[in-house]
Formats: sequence, structure tokens, C-alpha cells
Amino acid sequence: MAGGRANNSSANANRKKKEVKKETGLGLSAKKDDNFGEWYSEVVISGELIEYYDISGCYILRPWTMSIWEVMQGFFDAEIKKMNIKNCYFPLFVSPGVLQKEKDHIEGFAPEVAWVTKSGQSDLEVPIAIRPTSETVMYPYYSKWIRGHRDLPLKLNQWCNVVRWEFSNPTPFIRSREFLWQEGHTAFSTKEEADKEVLEILELYRCIYEEYLAIPVIKGKKSEHEKFAGGLYTTSVEAFIPNTGRGVQGATSHCLGQNFAKMFEINFENEKGEKAMVWQNSWAYSTRTIGVMVMVHGDDKGLVLPPKVAAVQVIVIPVPYKDADTERILEVCKATAKTLTESGFRAEADFRDNYSPGWKYSHWEMKGVPLRIEIGPKDLANEQVRAVRRDNSAKVDIPMVSLVEQVKDLLANIQQSLFDAAKQKRDACIQVVKTWDEFTEALSHKKLILAPWCNEEEVEKDVKARTKGEIGAAKTLCSPFDQPALDEGTLCFASGKPAKKWTYWGRSY
Amino acid sequence: MAGGRANNSSANANRKKKEVKKETGLGLSAKKDDNFGEWYSEVVISGELIEYYDISGCYILRPWTMSIWEVMQGFFDAEIKKMNIKNCYFPLFVSPGVLQKEKDHIEGFAPEVAWVTKSGQSDLEVPIAIRPTSETVMYPYYSKWIRGHRDLPLKLNQWCNVVRWEFSNPTPFIRSREFLWQEGHTAFSTKEEADKEVLEILELYRCIYEEYLAIPVIKGKKSEHEKFAGGLYTTSVEAFIPNTGRGVQGATSHCLGQNFAKMFEINFENEKGEKAMVWQNSWAYSTRTIGVMVMVHGDDKGLVLPPKVAAVQVIVIPVPYKDADTERILEVCKATAKTLTESGFRAEADFRDNYSPGWKYSHWEMKGVPLRIEIGPKDLANEQVRAVRRDNSAKVDIPMVSLVEQVKDLLANIQQSLFDAAKQKRDACIQVVKTWDEFTEALSHKKLILAPWCNEEEVEKDVKARTKGEIGAAKTLCSPFDQPALDEGTLCFASGKPAKKWTYWGRSY
Repeated sequence: MAGGRANNSSANANRKKKEVKKETGLGLSAKKDDNFGEWYSEVVISGELIEYYDISGCYILRPWTMSIWEVMQGFFDAEIKKMNIKNCYFPLFVSPGVLQKEKDHIEGFAPEVAWVTKSGQSDLEVPIAIRPTSETVMYPYYSKWIRGHRDLPLKLNQWCNVVRWEFSNPTPFIRSREFLWQEGHTAFSTKEEADKEVLEILELYRCIYEEYLAIPVIKGKKSEHEKFAGGLYTTSVEAFIPNTGRGVQGATSHCLGQNFAKMFEINFENEKGEKAMVWQNSWAYSTRTIGVMVMVHGDDKGLVLPPKVAAVQVIVIPVPYKDADTERILEVCKATAKTLTESGFRAEADFRDNYSPGWKYSHWEMKGVPLRIEIGPKDLANEQVRAVRRDNSAKVDIPMVSLVEQVKDLLANIQQSLFDAAKQKRDACIQVVKTWDEFTEALSHKKLILAPWCNEEEVEKDVKARTKGEIGAAKTLCSPFDQPALDEGTLCFASGKPAKKWTYWGRSY
Repeated sequence: MAGGRANNSSANANRKKKEVKKETGLGLSAKKDDNFGEWYSEVVISGELIEYYDISGCYILRPWTMSIWEVMQGFFDAEIKKMNIKNCYFPLFVSPGVLQKEKDHIEGFAPEVAWVTKSGQSDLEVPIAIRPTSETVMYPYYSKWIRGHRDLPLKLNQWCNVVRWEFSNPTPFIRSREFLWQEGHTAFSTKEEADKEVLEILELYRCIYEEYLAIPVIKGKKSEHEKFAGGLYTTSVEAFIPNTGRGVQGATSHCLGQNFAKMFEINFENEKGEKAMVWQNSWAYSTRTIGVMVMVHGDDKGLVLPPKVAAVQVIVIPVPYKDADTERILEVCKATAKTLTESGFRAEADFRDNYSPGWKYSHWEMKGVPLRIEIGPKDLANEQVRAVRRDNSAKVDIPMVSLVEQVKDLLANIQQSLFDAAKQKRDACIQVVKTWDEFTEALSHKKLILAPWCNEEEVEKDVKARTKGEIGAAKTLCSPFDQPALDEGTLCFASGKPAKKWTYWGRSY
């Protein structure tokens, strides 16, 4: 595949030398497999996704991040609009009375709520909370707007920032005090409609992870202990980071049941003229998605972006030589980028004359651009370009005449390969256990553990307590919708009671 | 134009009767010309743009608002991307040290800053401010990112919420404690580049007002007294509300000069290898735009939306009769909406069976939908539809065969008519004055006053002081770029000194 010029050209040897010479200062100092935490902190900075900020737990999202976010936003926003879900914007601020209306809910969020108490030099009469999520912000108005069955379903979404003033280990994207997300809040006449939407939204979240970010996820239901505070049940897509052996809750789609409806008096007159209570859902995904992408695909050269979300899918780099027709090379690079752009790819050429080609290779590898195209004198002579894949470094010479179709195929192939490789690694971490000893053994090997469980909350708490250590306790991630057969007589790995279902366990972010 | 069925059909008479009967409860109680403030508060609620919130000065932006915002956002975001301006996202929170770095700037904003002092039950070590605008949030990082001339220009934008805890007269969209906006922040090597961009962005703001919102604006420069705190000069687009005789600063594009660069040490090595300071701009428009649109176009029946920003451009309403083929009418309505949607219009049909056609007319008039299409038995028989314009109530029968092209023409015509009508009204309010007496007389008649001015800050302050009254003082709105000839010897209307330029004066929001 790599064409026939690998060993036979002195020009190539020169090129190689030059690269090495100029590559200094661009690499990561930590290796992903040796010191994952350090590697992650470095790669989000060097890949220009994030800049650290002078308030702990807050991060600057740079353009390279925002372009990824906007691609996902474009997809998701269009999909929910097809479902007739409308965008709205509710205030950032919540009054304390409303915030505290749902007891379980506020218990879950209270420690993390940031409070505004002053404006200018004056104290406010009452402190005002900043939304950690908007259930309590929105639902008093649902109560006002919903009168009869014809006002249902009411389906709203908002794209906004939320604040959770956490004190444990801030991590860019994964755990930050302010983050961007969408939050959908819907109300229905019947539980059936709510149940159906929960899964429709969850499927969109699966798409974001699997089809855009090329990350395999498990769809399932959270345990009673892990479900959304105040809700009826929570579904999620769960990702896994092999390097740390930790699960990540990728996005959640909650059925809130009628609990909030009761607290906020969201009633309606049904078709029979009787008073009834609505059934509600809420669902969200956040910029956390981007952190998971970095963790799953990144390598020791930097970020690796799936083509579908990359701001730049193809970077064209001129490789001029002393005696070569530099002007012509630049022209062809420009034309190549133009052809690709006009064919619908996100392509750019890097014409900066103060950097060597080798420096540029490293730079764009660090930023994770899926495909690099190099054009030098030999390529001109052969009417070809050289394409180099970011994911596996494979090189291929592409005849100019078939540029567009081969780039298209390559990008599709990269997208699929990233998913396949991630899935293979993830699957290799899954371990089925049936006993407590197998469980602790698997946990010590950073496995994603699938175990038969009695489904009792006390047992989950007990597992948490028994596995508590420096690097965190094990907990349930989800009970997958796709349940393996549970043989009769199977016992819970932890309690020895009859098992009710298979559940994924592990440490998590 | 209205076709031949105005007076000759008993079906029509019935229709009329029915409408009146069911229209109760939908109208506005205040008239725009009688009690503008009341009318405005009512129309933003009844038109379903806004819901009042339990924290004063905060408002819920409902889907009808967000769809308008998203249209403008789509336009502006695409245009700035063409200019190679990249989106980013900086934190909501600012540390006090950074916030206070630029003295003039913080003086301008300090009284309105909201402070977070607590999280959960704990006091924060240092209070943290919520961004009123992001100059001081961003520029420490500009200083870090900008090293050499090749790092310039640096051109970033963000779509976000900001908070200004104002105490004077909160008004939906126009003056709210939290609002949505975009803020662009750019840095250049030279003043020339900065100057050029200021005007390019101002032209985009003109487009938003004139071409999207159908509102005439005046481009010009703010006075020293009214310019952005800490900046070099401010340009703006100024709109005018004839009913209140108040100007509205529509959007601003500031050249910050090198003032912030000095404070935040944003230096670079220029092409000659010398240390130099960047030139900066910042520019913003906000959800205020939507308030101006409501004020300018709305009438006693409700909102009037320009077609280009309306979520629904055409509403199709079935007008069934007792003896008519209702099923066929509904089918044709559905097909009509479908044809229009497929032709790229935002069209919907209202099939609700618990509302009369007349109620629906009023409902969609309240919401400001530009064009209504009614389809009844007679329309079926004649293979036509009846179209009714929101802006001037004109009715026209459109043969089904030319539906798409006539709707296209009608919407274009409505867009233009709204602009023309608004411009005519605005222009009728402009009054040229040359003396103090003429000035106070014009002010009492709610005019938009164009006067020769000596351009001295003390004189402006003096005018403010002398016109201070219950309904607010007069101030400069802008000095229009489009300057009428200033005859030699012309004196300032207020100071009697030689006039330097023509300037617009008035009360303002």
C-alpha cells in the first residue's frame, strides 16, 4: 500500500534527516502507557484543545475543541428538531426556594452548588444559586404552561453552561466546575411515551459516541444507587478507558417518572376530563464526550481525531527541496486543498515558511489530523500525492486523478479503524466473573467486569465499601440492555443470593 | 389584489361571525400607541417569546425566541467563519485580580458585577466574579499565546451568556440581568487591520438589523463619553423606537487600541525583530436585537415577524364548513404545507380540532407569522388558496399552480415592506436642529435629533444635566459616518462653539 519509494531516494533520506532535526520541542514528555494522567494533561494542552485557567477546575475551550463540539451539536440538534423538540433558554440563576423543592434531587446536588450573594458592593437580599442542572429551574413553568392533554407532549432542550463546584480531582472535559452541555426536558401524558423517548435519545447518544467519536459504548440501565437524584430510572451509554481501567458515564437519558410532577404540580386534564400528572424525562450529554475521545484514541504523538469530528480532516504539506520548483509545489498544494474543500472535505494547506515539513508533520500529528498529504518534487513528477494516516502511520501514494475518491475512502476507513481498534481494546478488558475472588482479581487488573448480581442496593454499597482504596471503589456502571443468558441457579458474585441480572462493574470517572 | 369574494358569499359572512365569536381572550389589552410599555410587556408574553421568571431581570427565552436567535446566529457565525474568526469558550468566572486589571474598564462594569462567594455550605477563599463581558477573562491568555508576528492576527469569538446585575428598569430583551450574545475578541499587528475589521463587523451588524430584522439603523461612532470603557473608539448601529422616541444601541464594534494590550502585556516580536504591542478589537450583539424587532414591527394584534427570521413563515389553516368535504380540505392543507416546506419555506399547518379558524387566525397573528394561508371549500372548487399578509392584512387568492412562486414573492415583499415602513416612520422622526430651543422642542416631541456639535465631552455632560427629567436625559447616540455637509461657521447647538460634526442625540434605552 505504501507505494514504491520507501528506500530508494536520496531525497527521501534528506527529508528524513531534516524532520528529525526540526522536531525538537514538539513531543509529549509523558507516555500514555506509562503515566496516563500526565499524558492526558499534556495532550489536551499540546493538542490545543484546552488552556488551563486561573480558577481551578475551569478550563478554556480553544477553537480546536469548539469545532468538534459544533459537529456533534449540528448532528444532535438536527435530530432532536426532527423529533419536534424545541430549543429554549432558561436563566442561569435559581432561587433557593425552587432549588430545594425536590428533596432527593437537591441532596444530590447541594454540596456542589455555587451561590451568588453580592452584586457590586451590595449584598443580595437572598443568595441566588447557579444552575447545576435545570430541572428545578424549568418545572415551575411546565406547571404553568401545561393545562390540558393538548399541551402535551412538551419537549424542550437547551444548549448552555452549568456549574458544579466539585472539589475532587478536576480533569479537563471529564470533571470541570463549569461545562457545556445540552439538557432536554420533556413531559408526556403517558409513561409509554416517556419510556419510548428515553431510548430514542439514548440511541442518539450512542450515535455520537460510536459513529462520530468512534468510541464503543454499552447501553444500559443504572442501578438504583447510581440513578439520577429524584428520577425514576436512568439509562446511559457507558464508555471505558483501558489505560486506567475506569468506566465513564458517557451520557444519560433519565425517566423522571412523576416525582418532579408531584413536587412542582405539573398536572393536566386528560382526554376523559380527569386530572392527571405528567410523565417526565430529562437527558444530557456534555463536553465530557471530548475528554473520552482524547483518552480512547490519543497516542504518544498526540491527539487522534476521528475524521467525522475533526476541524481539519486533511492537512496538505508542501515538501520543497533546494533544487525543486518550489513555486509549482506550492501551487499544487493549494490546488489539492481547494479540490478537497470543494468536494466537501475539511482540508487545509500549511504554507508557513518558518517551519520545516518535519516540524509540520509533528505539529499536525499532535493536533490529531486524520490524514496528511505531502507533496514534493517526486510527487509532482509522478502526478501523485503521498497520503499518511494519523491512526496507523500507513503511507499510500495517490494518483492525482483519483484524489477525491481515495481520500474519501481513506477517511471512511480511518473512522472505521478507530472504532474497531477501540472496540477490540475495550472488549479485551471485559471480564466475566462469578465469585468475589474473581471480582477483586479482575478489578486489580483494571478490567471492565461483567458479573451476575442480586440487584440489591445494600449489596452494591457493600461492594463499594469493601473495594475502597486509594484509587477509588468499584461500583456498578450499568446493567446492559443486551443481557447474556443467566443460567438458572446463578448466584450474585458479592452476596451469594440468587442473581437477578448481569451488571457491569468497575472503577469510574 | 384581494380577489372577488370579499362581499358576495354567505359562507364568508358565516366565517366572519364565527371568528369574532371565538376570538375572545386572545387580544392584547394595551394599545401600542396608548401605553407602549404595557403593550410591550404583554406582547412578548402573548407572542410566546418570553416568560417572566421568579428572579427579577431574568427571563425565559421560549422556543419562538430561540428560533429567531438561531437564524441570526446561523448567518453571523457563517460570516465570521469566512473571515477566519474561530469560536472558543472561556469560563463564566473571573478572578477579582484579573477583573480589576484595567481601571477604566472595571469602573464601567463594577457596580453590575455578580459575585459568587459560596459553594455548598462553604465560603470561597476569594469571591469570584461572573463575566459581565470577557475582555479581562480572555486577554491574559492572549498575552500567553501571542509571541511573534506569525501568531497574529488572533481572532476569536464566543457565543455565551453574560451577567450584568442592573437595577434600573429591567425590560425583556432590552435590559436583562443575564443575556445571550456573541463576543468577538481580535488582536492585530497594526492599527490599520484593526480599523478595517471594526467596520467589517459593523457591516454584519447592519445586515442583521436591516436585512434580517428589517430595521433601519444608523452606522456611526460613539462619543468619548459613550464609548466602551477602556477602549479607543466605539462604532455602533443605532436603531430608534418611534413610539417612545428613544434610540437603542443595536450592536457595537469597538477598537480597543493598545490600552488592554498595555495592561495585559500582549506583546509580540514584529517582522523587524522589535518588540511591539498588539492592536485589539472587541464586538458584540445580543438578544437585545429581538426586543428591538418587537418594538419596531409589533402592532395591536401582536408580534410581526420579518419572514427571514420567522420560525414559521407560512401558517396553513383549514376552514371547514358543516356541509363541506372536511377531509379533502385537510388533505389539501397538508399537501400545501408539504409543498412549501419542500420548496424551502418554513411552513406549518394548524390542524387542531378544538380551535375555530378564527381563533387560529388571531393566535398566529399574535405570534407574528408573516403569511397565513386559508383553505376552505370555495378555494378547493377554484383550485386556489387565500393568502393573508400579517403586515398589512392584504388578502390575495393564489392559484394552486403558482403557489410556490407567489409565496416566494409575497414573503420577499413583506420583508421589504416591513423595512420600508419602519424606515419611513424612523425618518419622519429625524429632526435637524441648530439651536438649544429647537433641541428641547424636538426632544419634547420624541424626535431623533441631528445637531451640529462641538464634540466636547463637557458639553455632552452639560446637555445631559440640563435635560435630566423623569423620563431620562438626552445624550449622544452616534456621529453618523454619513455626515451631511457642515457649512462653514456652523455653531454647536448647545455650546455655541464652532461645530465639528453632525451628531444624533436623543433619549435612549
